[in-house]
Amino acid sequence: MNTHQWTAALRVGQGFRLSDVDADATPGYHGHKADGERDLAAGLEALNELQERLFAQSRAGTARDAVLLVLQAMDSAGKGGIVRHVVGGVDPQGVSLAAFKAPTAEERAHDFLWRVAKRLPEPGFIGVFDRSHYEDVLIGRVRGLADPAEIERRYEAINAFEAEAAASGIRIVKVMLHISADEQKARLMERLDRPDKHWKYNPGDVDERMLWPQYMQAYQAVFDRTSTEAAPWRVVPANRKWYARLAVQELLLAALEDIDPQWPGADFDVEAEKKRLAAS
Amino acid sequence: MNTHQWTAALRVGQGFRLSDVDADATPGYHGHKADGERDLAAGLEALNELQERLFAQSRAGTARDAVLLVLQAMDSAGKGGIVRHVVGGVDPQGVSLAAFKAPTAEERAHDFLWRVAKRLPEPGFIGVFDRSHYEDVLIGRVRGLADPAEIERRYEAINAFEAEAAASGIRIVKVMLHISADEQKARLMERLDRPDKHWKYNPGDVDERMLWPQYMQAYQAVFDRTSTEAAPWRVVPANRKWYARLAVQELLLAALEDIDPQWPGADFDVEAEKKRLAAS
Repeated sequence: MNTHQWTAALRVGQGFRLSDVDADATPGYHGHKADGERDLAAGLEALNELQERLFAQSRAGTARDAVLLVLQAMDSAGKGGIVRHVVGGVDPQGVSLAAFKAPTAEERAHDFLWRVAKRLPEPGFIGVFDRSHYEDVLIGRVRGLADPAEIERRYEAINAFEAEAAASGIRIVKVMLHISADEQKARLMERLDRPDKHWKYNPGDVDERMLWPQYMQAYQAVFDRTSTEAAPWRVVPANRKWYARLAVQELLLAALEDIDPQWPGADFDVEAEKKRLAAS
Repeated sequence: MNTHQWTAALRVGQGFRLSDVDADATPGYHGHKADGERDLAAGLEALNELQERLFAQSRAGTARDAVLLVLQAMDSAGKGGIVRHVVGGVDPQGVSLAAFKAPTAEERAHDFLWRVAKRLPEPGFIGVFDRSHYEDVLIGRVRGLADPAEIERRYEAINAFEAEAAASGIRIVKVMLHISADEQKARLMERLDRPDKHWKYNPGDVDERMLWPQYMQAYQAVFDRTSTEAAPWRVVPANRKWYARLAVQELLLAALEDIDPQWPGADFDVEAEKKRLAAS
């Protein structure tokens, strides 16, 4: 049933090198922008049907499975566009979206996974993490917010946490949207050029940008340590927004097709209910 | 700036009688279904722009205002369709959706407003309550889940709670989607006829349906007691789904235009940042 084999090219496996990825490329997909936009629109219908079946199970109380899309990226790589144009296409009733900012004092007082565990999607839902527990081994590592031994511990803690979530029925789709440093510069400059985009700009973005090589190293370590069988990473070239959106939609479709949700059967006597309703 | 005057016909004012409302009607709107669908699509663009401006303020830390759409209705009146086709058209990042089911043991141990207060939208957000604290004076009254003195207390508590929320900057848009009993019967029958709709059917829906007159009385009491200046009720005839969606979109547009959100100004030196970015 899985027709989304072209996304296999995105999977982070043994020997993966982030530095080998061309952020302009469209791996596995042979169409151009117009094709990609057409396929995105077509995929939305399939996504809607599968999502509704999954959600129906939650209403019927028979849901066991869920999907969790984890989005990580450098600033301006297009996380927001994925949320809007891919996730935004399905019924919001079945979506739970969590945007993780810098942790609050209360969150910092707990283990780094505390706030994340609370936001795992319930059965029947598509959850989205806009940033995630990976910040704790990305900015956490680059900025030295935790010491190296703690960072080491976190990789293992993440793998155990995700394996447990996967065993409970959550299909974890971890995506790094990968843009080039040049593309980021162009996108940030556009935000500065347009007053209606100033709100998206933060001087801190340039501070992080200046640490680009360190971030790429931290991402490489994340891929080396946390791309597991239960929760593999996908690196999606994202200089072309249309490609990134299409690829993430395909990954979600594949996760939903793996669940293969069926319409729940009636847990009542249909004919008896028809009579009761007719008489009411 | 407010061009949505046609929805004025929906406002619950002095002397309003629910029994006078024709659920088939399209008050204030002179077009037909095709016009309504075209206007809904056109309105979505306006809604998106206003929502993005509001959300931008939350990111910039300057937001004070929010919108809260409260949806109440008998089963099958179309709450889900409003969430999907009206709210679902805007960026999910700026929407907070709360679906209130029968209260849990923990929720029952608190005042009825406790769980609701926690889900009020933050500044910059559009909140949606799919059912709400009004259940506590609707099913609460019809089913005798609380004694009459407590129901009386709740109307006052609701008015005080909503006045406070409105004073804090939340535009409260309270909507009852009003279908006729015959239309409900047809919609529930369709759910029974289609196996892919069985999950939407609950035998309890017919139990509630049998109390239709009592529910209409309870809604009338809600309108009499809680349609305030700060948070007026709107009764939207909903036998025609296209009309109900268009009307709710218009009400949201009016609330957003009342806020009139502006793009936040830069809180940084734009030219200095351009130089810093160019050098990075």
